[in-house]
Amino acid sequence: MRTQVVIIGGGPSGLLLGQLLQRQGIDTVLLERHSREYVLARIRAGVLEAGLVNLLHEAGVGERMQRDGLQHEGIYLAHSNRGFRIDFRRLCDGAVTVYGQTELTRDLYQARDAMGAAMLHQVDQVEIHGADSERPQVNFIHDGRARRIDCDFIAGCDGFHGVSRNTIPADRRSQFERVYPFGWLGVLSQTPPVSEELIYASHERGFALCSMRSPSLSRYYIQVALEDNVQQWSDAEFWNELKRRIPHDAAESIVTGDSIEKSIAPLRSFVAEPMRWGRLFLCGDAAHIVPPTGAKGLNLAASDVYYLWRGLRQYYDAGDTRGIDDYSALALARVWKAERFSWSMTNLLHRFPGQSPFDLRMQQAQLEYLESSSAAQTALAENYLGLPY
Amino acid sequence: MRTQVVIIGGGPSGLLLGQLLQRQGIDTVLLERHSREYVLARIRAGVLEAGLVNLLHEAGVGERMQRDGLQHEGIYLAHSNRGFRIDFRRLCDGAVTVYGQTELTRDLYQARDAMGAAMLHQVDQVEIHGADSERPQVNFIHDGRARRIDCDFIAGCDGFHGVSRNTIPADRRSQFERVYPFGWLGVLSQTPPVSEELIYASHERGFALCSMRSPSLSRYYIQVALEDNVQQWSDAEFWNELKRRIPHDAAESIVTGDSIEKSIAPLRSFVAEPMRWGRLFLCGDAAHIVPPTGAKGLNLAASDVYYLWRGLRQYYDAGDTRGIDDYSALALARVWKAERFSWSMTNLLHRFPGQSPFDLRMQQAQLEYLESSSAAQTALAENYLGLPY
Repeated sequence: MRTQVVIIGGGPSGLLLGQLLQRQGIDTVLLERHSREYVLARIRAGVLEAGLVNLLHEAGVGERMQRDGLQHEGIYLAHSNRGFRIDFRRLCDGAVTVYGQTELTRDLYQARDAMGAAMLHQVDQVEIHGADSERPQVNFIHDGRARRIDCDFIAGCDGFHGVSRNTIPADRRSQFERVYPFGWLGVLSQTPPVSEELIYASHERGFALCSMRSPSLSRYYIQVALEDNVQQWSDAEFWNELKRRIPHDAAESIVTGDSIEKSIAPLRSFVAEPMRWGRLFLCGDAAHIVPPTGAKGLNLAASDVYYLWRGLRQYYDAGDTRGIDDYSALALARVWKAERFSWSMTNLLHRFPGQSPFDLRMQQAQLEYLESSSAAQTALAENYLGLPY
Repeated sequence: MRTQVVIIGGGPSGLLLGQLLQRQGIDTVLLERHSREYVLARIRAGVLEAGLVNLLHEAGVGERMQRDGLQHEGIYLAHSNRGFRIDFRRLCDGAVTVYGQTELTRDLYQARDAMGAAMLHQVDQVEIHGADSERPQVNFIHDGRARRIDCDFIAGCDGFHGVSRNTIPADRRSQFERVYPFGWLGVLSQTPPVSEELIYASHERGFALCSMRSPSLSRYYIQVALEDNVQQWSDAEFWNELKRRIPHDAAESIVTGDSIEKSIAPLRSFVAEPMRWGRLFLCGDAAHIVPPTGAKGLNLAASDVYYLWRGLRQYYDAGDTRGIDDYSALALARVWKAERFSWSMTNLLHRFPGQSPFDLRMQQAQLEYLESSSAAQTALAENYLGLPY
């Protein structure tokens, strides 16, 4: 079997890259380790920057998002039982779109199906060979049979635990990491969101976030200890704890309900450099992880996809390798800025074990300064909206 | 002996407060532990916010500063051997004035002499009694004799090691502190400054600062280990180390010379709350210390002086105690914002023992973001220029 670009990983970044390339007449094969049902059952991010929204339109998959997505022109930051708004429209004339990653993935699957582009699920034992040669190939097991695809390029969109990053020899890459000493307990519930916009709450008991996927589907999070496990938290206990951490008026008006998903996620900052090794390109979580504070994970994957798509197009259209040669540097420049933002939002809003009274006052002073300063709010807003590609 | 306000401490904040009060007809006695020569030999800050400049004019001591002070409309931040400018005029339509604290203190002494206001030097064993009563008094030894002053109010302008703060019972105050794991080695030299504006340099070997007191008097600093002592550093070694940490063009053009002062200062963030206890008011370093990164120490003392002066004036003019009742809350609100700024500048620019590669990249990403973002530069500029009183 032969194709131009093998895409490893059938999450939103692999699917979006595939869609963009196929529409340019560049042939791709997409390999996904899990079943489609498994992929579509994963609950993930839901805040899309304008850059990603544009890219979805470019890929021809923006229609349902355009119709059902919620335009958010601000967020609330809450502390000391009061909230203040960061007004994206006023500060930066921008907005984000709230649209669940699950829905986005569904749209992308549908588009790929409609195009009839190759996509194999439940592939196993994926191995990348010759990535540093002119003739890379990908070997794997599918349907019980050993398979091989020869290709021009490989896009590693297979996430933090995928094979792509580890294909790059350890002595040819650097890794940077920060593991935070807490996790997020998230609950999805079929209830109307407590607020039309997201509420990020700093509280002495820990961080809380009121988010949503749609007008009838709420997503709430609370900071919990790393040792906690999800069985310890009944729905009632979760709602009680959430209410203690958000402003009173929100706590009084929140509609609670049964959780339809409940899980604890660790928080990590991670970057691997470079993002290219020969003809292998890493995209999204395969190369970098951000803590979810600031909603940058999916959006960063999207800018990687954008740079890679542009580079491959230049290559196939004109034999120009500059775009793919610059891929790693371009993508990483944006990655580090988003890592900085996610790290600073995480530091600002969470309680850390061993924080001194002075450290706590610094968090409070940062929030109060942010509340009072249009310049500081603009800096936050431009990052939340997404720095330019 | 009796007066209206006893001012403990003859540094710039005590002198400035005295000058402002005397000009309103409020009688003060100023007590200073050291000789005038000792006070005038101290080398301290030299960057004045517009708020302090206005206050000096208000106190009638702005003339020489107006003539000899240098208007700075920006600073340079350097990293990775390149610098970029924060343009105060463009971003915030503001400037700071560079004028040595020593000169300012000299001007204030002269003005107090001219006024004939009481000022005792080399007072010893100062004790504050009855600060929480209607009849406070200050006892001390002067010229070998025990003395006592009865007064309405006491202004504690006697610095971090003074008696004023410790007069407030320990169970009636809170203290917040961060001691940084490094110091600044500073050199004063009779040489023209390397740059017309200050250069704050982040470097893998540690922070460096190119500052000045006048067009012929330079002040340079380098971050050193806390254990270092000044005898270990010859002038030649200091200049060599400084040159390694600043951009090449600055290192090549710098004029070096003999140090006329050389010292190591520790870096500390400290706040004591409240800043008022009965009829005792703390001003400046007596209540709070900032690390010198960001040049906020003297400027914060000035805003304390402003709030206290206004409060005492209201009291003596109209019997209105609201200004003095609000003193601590008003002063502290501004103090915490400046503490935040000084702490964040210190965190941004220094190397810390035990920093991980990820932490180092976060510093670099912050500097790169700052270099690229007008909003982030505006936030820095508005803090450097001084938040409103």
